[in-house]
Amino acid sequence: MKSIDVCMTPELMHLYDVKNRVVVVVDVLRATSCMVSALANGVKSIIPVSKLEECEALRKKGCVGAAERDGKMAEGFDLGNSPFAYMDGAYAGKIIAMTTTNGTQAISRSKEAAEVVIGAFLNKTVLLNYLCNQPNDVLVLCAGWKGKVNLEDTLFAGALVEGLKDSFYIENDSALAAQTLYNVAKKNMMKFLGISSHAKRLRNLHIEDDIKFCLTSDVYSLIPVLKNNELVVMEGNFVKV
Amino acid sequence: MKSIDVCMTPELMHLYDVKNRVVVVVDVLRATSCMVSALANGVKSIIPVSKLEECEALRKKGCVGAAERDGKMAEGFDLGNSPFAYMDGAYAGKIIAMTTTNGTQAISRSKEAAEVVIGAFLNKTVLLNYLCNQPNDVLVLCAGWKGKVNLEDTLFAGALVEGLKDSFYIENDSALAAQTLYNVAKKNMMKFLGISSHAKRLRNLHIEDDIKFCLTSDVYSLIPVLKNNELVVMEGNFVKV
Repeated sequence: MKSIDVCMTPELMHLYDVKNRVVVVVDVLRATSCMVSALANGVKSIIPVSKLEECEALRKKGCVGAAERDGKMAEGFDLGNSPFAYMDGAYAGKIIAMTTTNGTQAISRSKEAAEVVIGAFLNKTVLLNYLCNQPNDVLVLCAGWKGKVNLEDTLFAGALVEGLKDSFYIENDSALAAQTLYNVAKKNMMKFLGISSHAKRLRNLHIEDDIKFCLTSDVYSLIPVLKNNELVVMEGNFVKV
Repeated sequence: MKSIDVCMTPELMHLYDVKNRVVVVVDVLRATSCMVSALANGVKSIIPVSKLEECEALRKKGCVGAAERDGKMAEGFDLGNSPFAYMDGAYAGKIIAMTTTNGTQAISRSKEAAEVVIGAFLNKTVLLNYLCNQPNDVLVLCAGWKGKVNLEDTLFAGALVEGLKDSFYIENDSALAAQTLYNVAKKNMMKFLGISSHAKRLRNLHIEDDIKFCLTSDVYSLIPVLKNNELVVMEGNFVKV
């Protein structure tokens, strides 16, 4: 039986051997929700980078520069971290260089993995179906907030554990904790997250619409996958529901 | 208002500034439960050390040597990690040198703190009363399992957050997650923990009685506190319930 585990923050990634695992990188508010939305809205690929300087260098080479720090767009770039910025084909056909406070850092810690895919509530069901039908063990990597655990990524990790519990062996307590939290929160995640530190932080940025959208399940039916350091749409037909 | 936060594993301690905080070290199964039990049963003091060699060196100087690795007593020592070993005054008046897989490692990562105290269900209420009536912010440090998050320590951290929620500000999502998990589990912790990886690991060691005892609230009314690298009984009168 394949196994599933949850790494609650990138700071704990050194404890996990990922050579034979699919790593699902999760930054619900908002990096991985943006990545899913961007590719669903025609963006050709996304190059995730850790540093603002790398993002700027790629921008000078012709990429669109998406850069977020502390929830806001970093100065001098084209885009911040709102999924709505990618809608209506605004960047269709383009290559985006993206750096965010947490999400792109998590990707850079996953490069040893057998495969890196991007998860968000927006593509939850196609992702569950894919994970079920591929051969590797799964590690869900929560991006967290500056190294600390956050609730929204843990909830999504829990949604994956809950969705895979019949066909995967649950390896460690962090996966059980995430699953329990998701089952408590799932009826009204917006309300549950209303108490969280990160939601308070984001509320101060007036992005309630972003949060509501990022907590919506199954808006899109694609999976971003890392190929040669670029996120592209995974090939194949995925059934949404 | 004072604040409370939870560090889910010692591997994340570098993210927390503890200079002005009381750190509550928690290793429910079983190091901190042992420490509380030992001091309640007349042990004079406990010297927590990280390495087996340090423990052995102190043993040669006349301490009793308590050493646990992977849930079992390390070879050549006097004691493992069962609270029952300290009962009936077996080590009354003695100084114990103690090293465990997780708990004593957590203590060694807390030495910058304003104060280090030891928490377990066994001394829960006196600890809550003390934390309420002292002036510092609180960080609960879960010992976890080899760097990873575990359920039983997270549950006890949650019990402290729940018990202090009216007089402390909850700083981060990990504290909210712990509190939520405790509130789900509190009616039957034994059952809730029955699913956990660590409980399964311990079940293989046939220590069900230890687990049951370690999950019992308020058996003792003392608080171990670190003074000059030794755990001793905190002075003062603590009301149990």
